[in-house]
Amino acid sequence: MSTARTKGPVKIVGAGLIGTSIGLALRGIGVEVLISDLSPSVLDLSVDFGAGRKFLAGDEPRLVVVATPPDVVADVVLEQFKLHPGAIVTDVASVKGPVIAKLQSEKVDLSNFVSSHPMAGREQAGALAGRSDIFVGRPWVITSTVHSASEAVSAVEALALDLGSTIFRMEASEHDRAVALVSHAPQLVASLLAGRLANSRESEVSLAGQGLRDTTRIAASDAKLWIQILRANGKEVSKVLSELKLDLDKVVASLENIEEAGSLANIGKVLEQGNLGVSKIPGKHGSKATEYAKITVMIDDKPGELARLLTEVGQIGVNLEDLTLEHATGALVGLPELYVLPEESDRLTQELSQRGWKVL
Amino acid sequence: MSTARTKGPVKIVGAGLIGTSIGLALRGIGVEVLISDLSPSVLDLSVDFGAGRKFLAGDEPRLVVVATPPDVVADVVLEQFKLHPGAIVTDVASVKGPVIAKLQSEKVDLSNFVSSHPMAGREQAGALAGRSDIFVGRPWVITSTVHSASEAVSAVEALALDLGSTIFRMEASEHDRAVALVSHAPQLVASLLAGRLANSRESEVSLAGQGLRDTTRIAASDAKLWIQILRANGKEVSKVLSELKLDLDKVVASLENIEEAGSLANIGKVLEQGNLGVSKIPGKHGSKATEYAKITVMIDDKPGELARLLTEVGQIGVNLEDLTLEHATGALVGLPELYVLPEESDRLTQELSQRGWKVL
Repeated sequence: MSTARTKGPVKIVGAGLIGTSIGLALRGIGVEVLISDLSPSVLDLSVDFGAGRKFLAGDEPRLVVVATPPDVVADVVLEQFKLHPGAIVTDVASVKGPVIAKLQSEKVDLSNFVSSHPMAGREQAGALAGRSDIFVGRPWVITSTVHSASEAVSAVEALALDLGSTIFRMEASEHDRAVALVSHAPQLVASLLAGRLANSRESEVSLAGQGLRDTTRIAASDAKLWIQILRANGKEVSKVLSELKLDLDKVVASLENIEEAGSLANIGKVLEQGNLGVSKIPGKHGSKATEYAKITVMIDDKPGELARLLTEVGQIGVNLEDLTLEHATGALVGLPELYVLPEESDRLTQELSQRGWKVL
Repeated sequence: MSTARTKGPVKIVGAGLIGTSIGLALRGIGVEVLISDLSPSVLDLSVDFGAGRKFLAGDEPRLVVVATPPDVVADVVLEQFKLHPGAIVTDVASVKGPVIAKLQSEKVDLSNFVSSHPMAGREQAGALAGRSDIFVGRPWVITSTVHSASEAVSAVEALALDLGSTIFRMEASEHDRAVALVSHAPQLVASLLAGRLANSRESEVSLAGQGLRDTTRIAASDAKLWIQILRANGKEVSKVLSELKLDLDKVVASLENIEEAGSLANIGKVLEQGNLGVSKIPGKHGSKATEYAKITVMIDDKPGELARLLTEVGQIGVNLEDLTLEHATGALVGLPELYVLPEESDRLTQELSQRGWKVL
């Protein structure tokens, strides 16, 4: 018996990472899933993996999820309208404007169509990278149009909730602007920065610390997927990067003529805008990152030490809001940073010190 | 009885974060520390904090550590030469070329001078932010010159080892190029990116994930300190950023004319260079980040859960090479990512699953 909000059968078109993950998650709560994919071998893989059964001619899904590569999404949605006139259709492309614009330019009834974007992913791609839990706690943006019927919106929101996501309702243009700002431009900036290291000497990168690692981590992502995303959202991403370029031009000119009047002020302004920008990023549970206090503890780098520390934090009764481990080249100790509510910070520091931990 | 390699008394000039931290660390291993600072109140604070006793006229240090703001380091070093003709002198400025060039332009004997750079710091500044352990496991770059006597080099290296640092020997120019690449340019890039969020709407940043948080984290650093560092290393930093600017110009032009021939190839090249760059960054213990396998586990977000997980990882006998906690807006579960040696990955996944953990 399914306890799901989503009424099946659900047809998934495109059995890659996202399609397979949705299938796995729906199967896990007892919803019937029908999978289709242009590639028979990808389809077989996804079915073997447990994401659902093969879609067969004559099957009548109630909900269709289009999870194909971005550049064919609109065409596939039109195809599904024709195949399943009664079904509700959504797509999961990470750029919404072009898909909706294309569909609105066609003479079709869009009442059963609700575009959406689950902001989940992994560094790997493909059916075998699929996991039922990748949507848990992630935003799922619903970009319905004026044409969308309320039952259709409810059905897509039910899917998002069933998969554990948090729902955000947005206009397509607002979504595309937002993801350009918080995801697509940062991806390119991380790649541009990491690119500086491509021809670096080992002695140079040996001085790298956690700052560089964090700043460039996402530059390790799949280049082929990102080309498609950036192509679809090129206009919005270029706006963010053009603004950044204006500031960068000023910074480079200021660094080259550092003793000229105004140079230090220009650089200072960029640094201060950066301070302000970081403070705007929501932390865990939607709160500001700056709302937490950080406690750094020095531990031996051996199995069980971090666990012992966190066991004692649990015993003290303080909830960890976040945790990072800091390393540096050649280090043989660990420096976990515990983030807690500010009002818990003094007590935790005191109690850990009393228990013999080296709180820095 | 001190077990330190360093022979005191050690005089510390400048009682800020680094000076105070060095004092605390040396006091902790029984070395006599004499502190001086132009500001009587800063000096009192550092002494009260336990970093050493006040330097008095007539005191004869064996080693002098100049830890003043970067722009006065060379002058202070010259002053210390005159005050303490027999003492070995080092400085800890984060840019080495200008300091050494200025001293070499003076007609003084530099045999007792060994410039150096402990790559440690905190987001806070000042004596009260001082901690004896901030140098542990961090690189301490020794930039001796042809004039430096070997005893002087040994004395500064002994200091670095006493404080737990890993020694790197470099030319000043090589050091300044390296820190421009791995620290100073990334700082400005993070600030430039975070600056885009300064005027953002809450609905836009609500979609932020761990990628944006990591990419912009260091943009929260102290703007006043960074202006000084960037001023001193402006030439090298501008070289790195000018190269980045060339790529950025190409990317923006390509995004604006995304369907023109060559646009996608340009963007793809930047993404691939980023992949390559990230793979060059050394991970923990000097190994490559790519050498570790990642295991993601879904846990309840309540006190003690992470500890319970890590206790079991310890029981299984697998050493954690690194650990991160991933969050997203509104999430009520934790997704710790455990990094282990690849050969341990299958066993850990299997054993954790058998113990009932949700391994993703």
